[in-house]
Amino acid sequence: MENRIKLAIVGFGNVGKGVLKAIERNPDMELKAILSRDPDRVNKEIKDIQVYNISELSCLNGLDVAILCGGSKNDLPKFTPGFAALINTVDSYDNHSMLPEYFKKIDAVARENNKVSVISTGWDPGTFSLERVLGSSFVPDGKTYAFYGLTPEGGLSMGHSDAIRTIKGVVDARQYTHAKVETIEKLRKGEVSELSLRDMCWRECFVVAEDDSDLKKIEEEIKGMPGYFKPYETSVKFITKAELENKFSNFPHDGVVITVGETGNGNKAIIEYNNTWESNPEATGSILVAHARATYRLSQEKKSGAFTILDFPPSYLSRHSRDELISKFM
Amino acid sequence: MENRIKLAIVGFGNVGKGVLKAIERNPDMELKAILSRDPDRVNKEIKDIQVYNISELSCLNGLDVAILCGGSKNDLPKFTPGFAALINTVDSYDNHSMLPEYFKKIDAVARENNKVSVISTGWDPGTFSLERVLGSSFVPDGKTYAFYGLTPEGGLSMGHSDAIRTIKGVVDARQYTHAKVETIEKLRKGEVSELSLRDMCWRECFVVAEDDSDLKKIEEEIKGMPGYFKPYETSVKFITKAELENKFSNFPHDGVVITVGETGNGNKAIIEYNNTWESNPEATGSILVAHARATYRLSQEKKSGAFTILDFPPSYLSRHSRDELISKFM
Repeated sequence: MENRIKLAIVGFGNVGKGVLKAIERNPDMELKAILSRDPDRVNKEIKDIQVYNISELSCLNGLDVAILCGGSKNDLPKFTPGFAALINTVDSYDNHSMLPEYFKKIDAVARENNKVSVISTGWDPGTFSLERVLGSSFVPDGKTYAFYGLTPEGGLSMGHSDAIRTIKGVVDARQYTHAKVETIEKLRKGEVSELSLRDMCWRECFVVAEDDSDLKKIEEEIKGMPGYFKPYETSVKFITKAELENKFSNFPHDGVVITVGETGNGNKAIIEYNNTWESNPEATGSILVAHARATYRLSQEKKSGAFTILDFPPSYLSRHSRDELISKFM
Repeated sequence: MENRIKLAIVGFGNVGKGVLKAIERNPDMELKAILSRDPDRVNKEIKDIQVYNISELSCLNGLDVAILCGGSKNDLPKFTPGFAALINTVDSYDNHSMLPEYFKKIDAVARENNKVSVISTGWDPGTFSLERVLGSSFVPDGKTYAFYGLTPEGGLSMGHSDAIRTIKGVVDARQYTHAKVETIEKLRKGEVSELSLRDMCWRECFVVAEDDSDLKKIEEEIKGMPGYFKPYETSVKFITKAELENKFSNFPHDGVVITVGETGNGNKAIIEYNNTWESNPEATGSILVAHARATYRLSQEKKSGAFTILDFPPSYLSRHSRDELISKFM
């Protein structure tokens, strides 16, 4: 295919690797550069792709979109504005409570530099945000909820795992989210009620700590982290690095957005959007790559500023032409 | 609320009534006129809304959007172009195989007259079309299917019921679609295969015929109807008008769009979008009304031509401001 969309990956952790694999499944995309704080490590894992230090920004010249794969807690707020001034970007910033501020900041930078930044896209925020808006638009008097980790093993949240890793004394961590399934059953029956975050899920943390660290202090710091853990029941278990690597090598995650309400004369309406991913970072990577396509199209239209999944036509996510979409997908 | 969106309903059958009820649940909308072939009948059912003959087009002056609620088989192809030349329109045209032609025709008329026509929106085509595109964009090597009537009673298809009613000798009809649930279970396990329409559902028709009509001929005509029935196993049962009204007074429908595939290194990915509606016409009405809002916004932006649910930002469906969407829905 000619004129493929030229991409860079910034940050080569789990999500960055998911993006790399997703690009291979999208023939209209081409990966031209990986930027990392540790190019030597990446060069050992990757062949055929140029790897640069994260400060070598000139490597972005001539590329279309940079997919920013850093952590939401520290990396993205720090690095996204700089990249958004240089190149069109996509990211999966996932701290819901800080999102308005993040949006405003990136929007200003991108506008000023005539760039497009699609922010906060993955599956939540991202596709789940879209489904919340659709549900509330079609069933305006209804209520919309999201649940995570409906499978017995629960779902691994990368954002929450990253957040734990930022705590001093933490070597590595995994956070599994567990839905309160009894609450979901009530919703499906139309027994709607006001739900607190605590009614909906609980959070299970497995943490590897440095030998000399104060475990009690780490546990308190996790449980008190605003947005991420404070609103939930949270359990913290300390395990060894070996245990973590043996038992928790997979990155499964799943979730559902449920809208429950009534139409017209009080007839029941239920909308459920359910995702089950064997690999959460690959899922996020796949969604990011589709959004890189939308980012490219918005920039081709000379748009600028920050956008979310709510702010552009969904057809921009697809590699299919308008004619194909109308004849085969409608 | 000031500056409410001024709407007309064209056609006051089941969907038209669903639209009426949906408008009442959307405080930014206002119904100003109902157009019908039989204003006297409508005037008996409705108070407080001006009812006009469908030929009194001057009643549309000063209104923002007309929601066209005629049948897809005969009414919409015939009437939509005329309305699309006069006013912004929304419709739920649902003959998938004829959609490219319908789109082209309405697009030309709307462009020429600087109007916006959002076509083919309800839940399929409509929200299900959107989910097919999202699924195929996020899991590009996957497969996406739609199933209808997962509940034991099946789902009542208004489009298919309307189609039967167009046959000579038919007084009334109900078409219930039944999903082949065993096929869905296979898909959920990731046992993907090529599925024909016949593997996915079968169609059950209850028909009231005129006394002197040729039942065998009606049955053959139903079963041979291209697009609607020909690709499926179809059963046709003739019943009396009284039986139909007693047994089939509800209009429930439900369905699911399933995308099954793999991400990155071959990890399984399943996305399911499931709708269950106690009243299908009210569901369609609710979705049409949200799309009237999007139609209005597109027209405010001086856009023109035909649009589908794929062609505008999803935020246009919502009555919430961008700030609210970012802070409460993302």
